[in-house]
Amino acid sequence: MIYLDNAATSFPKPVEVYSEVLNCMENYAANPGRGSHTMAIEASSKIMDTRQELSELFNIPNLLNIIFTCNATESLNIGIKGILKPGDHVISTVIEHNSVLRPLIYLNKKGITYTLLGVDENGYLNINNIKKSIRNNTKVIIINHTSNVLGTVQDIRGIGQIAKQYGIIFMVDASQSAGVIPIDVVLDNIDLLAFPGHKGLYGPQGTGGLYIKEGINLDSFIQGGTGSDSLSMKQPNFLPDKFESGTLNTPGIAGLYEGIRFIRKIGIENIRKHEIMLVEYLVKELRKLSYVKIYGGTDYKNRGAVVSLNIDTVDVSQVGDFLNKNGIAARTGFHCAPLIHQIIGTGRRGTVRISPGYFNSFDDIEKLIKVLKDIHEKRPFL
Amino acid sequence: MIYLDNAATSFPKPVEVYSEVLNCMENYAANPGRGSHTMAIEASSKIMDTRQELSELFNIPNLLNIIFTCNATESLNIGIKGILKPGDHVISTVIEHNSVLRPLIYLNKKGITYTLLGVDENGYLNINNIKKSIRNNTKVIIINHTSNVLGTVQDIRGIGQIAKQYGIIFMVDASQSAGVIPIDVVLDNIDLLAFPGHKGLYGPQGTGGLYIKEGINLDSFIQGGTGSDSLSMKQPNFLPDKFESGTLNTPGIAGLYEGIRFIRKIGIENIRKHEIMLVEYLVKELRKLSYVKIYGGTDYKNRGAVVSLNIDTVDVSQVGDFLNKNGIAARTGFHCAPLIHQIIGTGRRGTVRISPGYFNSFDDIEKLIKVLKDIHEKRPFL
Repeated sequence: MIYLDNAATSFPKPVEVYSEVLNCMENYAANPGRGSHTMAIEASSKIMDTRQELSELFNIPNLLNIIFTCNATESLNIGIKGILKPGDHVISTVIEHNSVLRPLIYLNKKGITYTLLGVDENGYLNINNIKKSIRNNTKVIIINHTSNVLGTVQDIRGIGQIAKQYGIIFMVDASQSAGVIPIDVVLDNIDLLAFPGHKGLYGPQGTGGLYIKEGINLDSFIQGGTGSDSLSMKQPNFLPDKFESGTLNTPGIAGLYEGIRFIRKIGIENIRKHEIMLVEYLVKELRKLSYVKIYGGTDYKNRGAVVSLNIDTVDVSQVGDFLNKNGIAARTGFHCAPLIHQIIGTGRRGTVRISPGYFNSFDDIEKLIKVLKDIHEKRPFL
Repeated sequence: MIYLDNAATSFPKPVEVYSEVLNCMENYAANPGRGSHTMAIEASSKIMDTRQELSELFNIPNLLNIIFTCNATESLNIGIKGILKPGDHVISTVIEHNSVLRPLIYLNKKGITYTLLGVDENGYLNINNIKKSIRNNTKVIIINHTSNVLGTVQDIRGIGQIAKQYGIIFMVDASQSAGVIPIDVVLDNIDLLAFPGHKGLYGPQGTGGLYIKEGINLDSFIQGGTGSDSLSMKQPNFLPDKFESGTLNTPGIAGLYEGIRFIRKIGIENIRKHEIMLVEYLVKELRKLSYVKIYGGTDYKNRGAVVSLNIDTVDVSQVGDFLNKNGIAARTGFHCAPLIHQIIGTGRRGTVRISPGYFNSFDDIEKLIKVLKDIHEKRPFL
């Protein structure tokens, strides 16, 4: 199978990820932070080491300000619900994923209002529009760093400067960018950074995290045993324990550790270069075909490894099926980001999404192009 | 290492668990429910198969009423916060874990009141006291099935009958019992069953679940992409999607599948018999030693595989350290259950907790007893 669905979850992972998950399960998967025996301490150490790797990757000043979650959706929910109170206003965009839009809709019933800024047809936000939308009660700006539909990379550094200037909390959804596009929470002025472990960071599914800048006080989300202050019925108020109730996914986090090590070994710029080379080649070749409609821009410096497309008037699920029959895994449909489909005109049909990763080759892309051509030329559904 | 900390997380797991986690990661860890390609379908199928295994284990009528979470703490939070509204009253007990107590304390500030029923010195609840505590606004009864401090197994069937009689929702925390003590959600009249995947069910860490009885309408907890109704910004209102936003822990759930298969192959009654044999032997031998104080009762039929103890006046952390130096992993301290320590008189010192599992042998227990004797006789800390 040629796997081109890395925007959903990266596959394969570096082999070190598999072997460390296995090593952890077989040798030290005790409950971290819950015991003083050797295995529990080894589990705790590995989790702390993973925080360290993350802190170096994202230039996070204090590793204890990173909490582990089970996916970016949980991270986003913890951040969004932890910071917003009735009466607050949020600025976000129409290119957000449902992991931001659905919590905002949910909170709207509880007295929180939001402005969703528009984007152009390639998915770019004009950051000058942010200032015009700031109100007295604007508490937080939430921005999707890289779109899972169009690959659009927003100017988070520019947005971060505006947020800082106006004293507004800046939250970044790095679901598609973490591990692929450099993020520096200090230079980018990020207060809350939500990221998955299982996409660009190459960890196993069941991992994610949230960076919470020192001084940002989020309401607790899940309360429970933390292995700390155990005699108290009050949730601890310090990080990371405040947000890490219950048993963590130790083998998953151990795998994530190896995923981040892999990125740092290869170099994030080399991963990015490889992925964007594949994307540029794919787009360039497909642009020669009049019957292929490609969504998103060609400013590759500001584009992630996601290409949404359609072929003639062929139904996306038929394209997906035919790709699958030919050994190619891609995603079709609406990609959990409802509003952007209106803007690019695919609100009814969705798109076929191709998302190559570091482990894909030019040969994979060649095969994909050939199968896409076959769909047009041979009309296998007729 | 002789691992006697199974109440924190079971170790080792059946080898099939390790190999299926690895097989999943290497071969089919696509994003379940997010694509129509072969790998994504295989991932979805495995998750559905695991729901099926769980439904057979707990006699759950409809497998779609089982949602996956990352641990029992999340399951309990989803249930507790999803069902309770300001003005509601809860009946629970003093033997609960912080995964119940801390959410209740948190909700108390939002206008939810609770009654924590007392238990006797062995941790048993007199179920007749429940009726006396029922108020007009009592919405839910939450009961810890098996104590992680004393091993006390409560009469959930009896409590379930009372809940049914009074039309009150019955929620069971099966953190220590799932996979070890038979649970039948129909016969036990359970409306909400929270369970971890990584303890008695032998799944990897990062897994857990919640059964939600048909007709029990919980408020959604985490909103986000579900791979369903993707064009809608509203969280789906059907199970399991309503509570499964973001990417699930597919490899973990695949491992859990094998864990449950293992239980059903061995027979839950045989697992239980083996564990309780070890506990009975341990308690019997330790009772011969005047300097060992054992907490909890000797009604083994209603006791799980947890033995809390103290030796003379030796500090529990010193006991833990000496056990560890002698290759024995146990947990010491307060075990995230603050109130029960007051009742058994260990509010200041905590206990040493021994929790054997199916993979422990009599030989392990013999070695433990020998080391405990050494602590008294040789006073290695002096």
